[in-house]
Amino acid sequence: MRRDRLFLAATLTAVFSADLYFILLPKLRSISQGSGHSCSCGPHNLSLPRQGGLATPRLSNWTSVPPEEGVILEPADAGGSKLERLFADPLYNIQIPVVGPEERLLQVEQLMEYYRKKVHMKIYSEAAAISNITVTEHEVSFDPDASWLKFHLGINRYALYSRDDPAVPQLLKDMQNMAVISADYTQDEKALKGACDCSQVVKPSGHHLKLALKMRNFAKAMFKPMRQQRDVETPEDFFYFVDFQRHNAEIAAFHLDRILDFRRVPPVAGRLVNVSGEVLQVTHNEDLRAVFFTSPANNTCFFAKCLYVCKTEYAVCGSPDLLEGSLSAYLPGLSIAPRISIPNPWIRSYTFTGREEWEVNPFYCDTIKQMYPYNSGNRLLNIIDMSIFDFLIGNMDRHHYEIFTKFGDEGFLLHLDNARGFGRHSQDEMSILAPLSQCCMIKRSTLLRLQLLVRPEYRLSDVMRESLDADPLRPILTEPHLSALDRRLQKVLRAVQRCIRRLGEDEVITNDFEQAVNRRRL
Amino acid sequence: MRRDRLFLAATLTAVFSADLYFILLPKLRSISQGSGHSCSCGPHNLSLPRQGGLATPRLSNWTSVPPEEGVILEPADAGGSKLERLFADPLYNIQIPVVGPEERLLQVEQLMEYYRKKVHMKIYSEAAAISNITVTEHEVSFDPDASWLKFHLGINRYALYSRDDPAVPQLLKDMQNMAVISADYTQDEKALKGACDCSQVVKPSGHHLKLALKMRNFAKAMFKPMRQQRDVETPEDFFYFVDFQRHNAEIAAFHLDRILDFRRVPPVAGRLVNVSGEVLQVTHNEDLRAVFFTSPANNTCFFAKCLYVCKTEYAVCGSPDLLEGSLSAYLPGLSIAPRISIPNPWIRSYTFTGREEWEVNPFYCDTIKQMYPYNSGNRLLNIIDMSIFDFLIGNMDRHHYEIFTKFGDEGFLLHLDNARGFGRHSQDEMSILAPLSQCCMIKRSTLLRLQLLVRPEYRLSDVMRESLDADPLRPILTEPHLSALDRRLQKVLRAVQRCIRRLGEDEVITNDFEQAVNRRRL
Repeated sequence: MRRDRLFLAATLTAVFSADLYFILLPKLRSISQGSGHSCSCGPHNLSLPRQGGLATPRLSNWTSVPPEEGVILEPADAGGSKLERLFADPLYNIQIPVVGPEERLLQVEQLMEYYRKKVHMKIYSEAAAISNITVTEHEVSFDPDASWLKFHLGINRYALYSRDDPAVPQLLKDMQNMAVISADYTQDEKALKGACDCSQVVKPSGHHLKLALKMRNFAKAMFKPMRQQRDVETPEDFFYFVDFQRHNAEIAAFHLDRILDFRRVPPVAGRLVNVSGEVLQVTHNEDLRAVFFTSPANNTCFFAKCLYVCKTEYAVCGSPDLLEGSLSAYLPGLSIAPRISIPNPWIRSYTFTGREEWEVNPFYCDTIKQMYPYNSGNRLLNIIDMSIFDFLIGNMDRHHYEIFTKFGDEGFLLHLDNARGFGRHSQDEMSILAPLSQCCMIKRSTLLRLQLLVRPEYRLSDVMRESLDADPLRPILTEPHLSALDRRLQKVLRAVQRCIRRLGEDEVITNDFEQAVNRRRL
Repeated sequence: MRRDRLFLAATLTAVFSADLYFILLPKLRSISQGSGHSCSCGPHNLSLPRQGGLATPRLSNWTSVPPEEGVILEPADAGGSKLERLFADPLYNIQIPVVGPEERLLQVEQLMEYYRKKVHMKIYSEAAAISNITVTEHEVSFDPDASWLKFHLGINRYALYSRDDPAVPQLLKDMQNMAVISADYTQDEKALKGACDCSQVVKPSGHHLKLALKMRNFAKAMFKPMRQQRDVETPEDFFYFVDFQRHNAEIAAFHLDRILDFRRVPPVAGRLVNVSGEVLQVTHNEDLRAVFFTSPANNTCFFAKCLYVCKTEYAVCGSPDLLEGSLSAYLPGLSIAPRISIPNPWIRSYTFTGREEWEVNPFYCDTIKQMYPYNSGNRLLNIIDMSIFDFLIGNMDRHHYEIFTKFGDEGFLLHLDNARGFGRHSQDEMSILAPLSQCCMIKRSTLLRLQLLVRPEYRLSDVMRESLDADPLRPILTEPHLSALDRRLQKVLRAVQRCIRRLGEDEVITNDFEQAVNRRRL
């Protein structure tokens, strides 16, 4: 009886607080915002000076009620969907102000015009006319309500998609089900022009086996085929840069990114692709057709173009035609939404013996902090977010990151190409966390969500399992990989605690949104 | 009681017959042989006309008492060594006449002179003087009693070694224990000069990871490192020509060849090689030194030269320095014992779709039978022996075979390079048996031994297990691979029976040694 009463009281308090901070305060703020007054950052925000860029930064306008330690809103084993409860948590419901046109990546009219031109040019039909081969043809169509278009239109300066954007689940469904009408090499592959550049240790390698698949209404996704069984661990002698690319890692990385509320990974769905009907029979690329063959077991297989002649071991095969793979939604084309690729300051050497400065200089971050663009804004904090993400998935191959040029230095970092994650569940590669452990900085919003995800009523492995269970290729991760997520999350939090013990909470935690009344205890 | 008496009678008969045929008859024959009279072949030997060549063929002088079906000389479960009992069987004790000088591959004085010159030239020291690197040096020595020398001197026109040659076990021991004093690429590898010839589908591939290791007294062995765990089966989509090379297949093939009494595979022993101390530190080859590196797990690894830059996935690694591998004894150098390499008439296409004539033409053997050198002598029967051997080990990669030029067309076929055997225990590739099933011919001596090896008191898998147990890398084959040998042996015998049903025993079985009194029932 007592417990029930306590629970009722807690719920009412939570509802009241949520109402106060999500409905009333934002309204008051949006009024004061109209006057052009930007927020004054808290006294502990010294390491992140006032931000410049295209638009007035609004991050500080976010409000939230992080639940106080000890006050458990939901009992640990309430049953039902942990994922739904997680996404209902106030921390996942921080409101951003109304996004102005300049804060959107694309304008509706601009994009509609772009596609109208494309339809007019009938590029698909033209391609078929040029080649003399028999290819299944499809009418060029364009639907302004297509999920791809909506996804592209939803990209803004804060994230690739909003939490409740119905375009994302629709996009995932479309990637799983829509008929593939055209297939080709990716631009990466085309740039190689089939040459094996043997002067480089790193590339090209067996991983160059990705394809661009097109569906109706200009939908386009990158297909990465399955190369490795789920239960196979990357051999301990493999360097990160020769590791396989794993389709299930791409899928799992998208789900993890969403659970961490970063939303910096484009949607990824698993799919059984018919490599005969959905690749060979619909491609206009003669080179691509040339790498198809039938294996001794009568399965349809294909090679990476570059490796065709030398490395038949690298072929992937359907069974007999169906091949598992990941489909990652393409971002808008570079001609309408340019991006730049920037070397990661914590890049690895990509040689057998070389070591980068960050590996030997414990004060490396002090240098970075003084360098543009890491000397202002939230870029360094974004790098640290990315390192936490990469540590959780075990990805050592983050040599570059991309940002949309439109959003300038304050744009979020895109977490593209996560296929080298989830290679080893038995190892936690602490060096991936170097940006966090060397700079001793973290966004408060990130930290609070990580703290939420260690709590038994959410537990990262549980919400990941539930989230991944929606993918048609389930199970996406084996249980050891899911457990590794929990273990690594604990290690991230311990790294933060070590920083706080050394430098104090105010030095380490950067407030990236309006503080709640009760600051959460660490 | 009755059974005992029958057994006693059978034993006495056998002992008497053995005495008659192994002691008395050969003596009589060796007297008559002095007159240069060669044997007249049996009436059913029409497909194999009188043989020419360097020496009078003596195969027909072999005599034996193949045990009659039903007469079991040893009880099925007598305990003790099945292998010893097998080698004590009369079939394994067919005597060959005294081997004349022309029937030996090498003359003692010729070989001694060859090595004396080598010592004089101090080739090892010279190589060291040329290079500026620090390499562990060893005094050049030469021992006329060295096992390698004895093995080379023992090679004659009948086989690579005689059944009871003590040089062979000594050679195996030496390969396992002798200090490696020099390491280098093999000639194959050197011929490539590090180039990746991408114009060929087949070669070079990841299998080019073999090294030539030298020990004292000019001992030299080919080292093939472990690439695959014993329990891993070759993926069903792999073509035979891209399959890994397996060190344990090399070892097992030597033992099987000896058990089949072919003795056409040079001795092979397993060894744990210290890739730092026994390769890196003793090689004068700068290119070889350059492909060594330390893996992320701190193991010493190396690449195939050709694949160095493109294919780091192909490295092999010690643990941290020790690496399992097979050591195959080198044959005498080509300058003193030239060999020719001849395409296998049942060669495969080595392309993805191509088919060779033998795969589509059921009368292919009729064409071959009319072609030199398969139109006379025992060459075709030797090819069939080889196909039985390859079928048992599951080797589809026999594109060429070699013979010593000295022995001319009647020389035995060398069964070199067996590392692509034992890839799949769950599949019996019947096409490997095409020479037998299409030509419907087999040597009586081969057939009788195969029939012996299906009998429970020997059983091929049991004698193989026992024989392989002598290797330091035991177990060499997993149980499924051993069982596959028994299953495949049955299939060989069924193929022979089908031929006999169709053409009759006299047409199918070729007498390659003096007939015993009781021809064995099939």
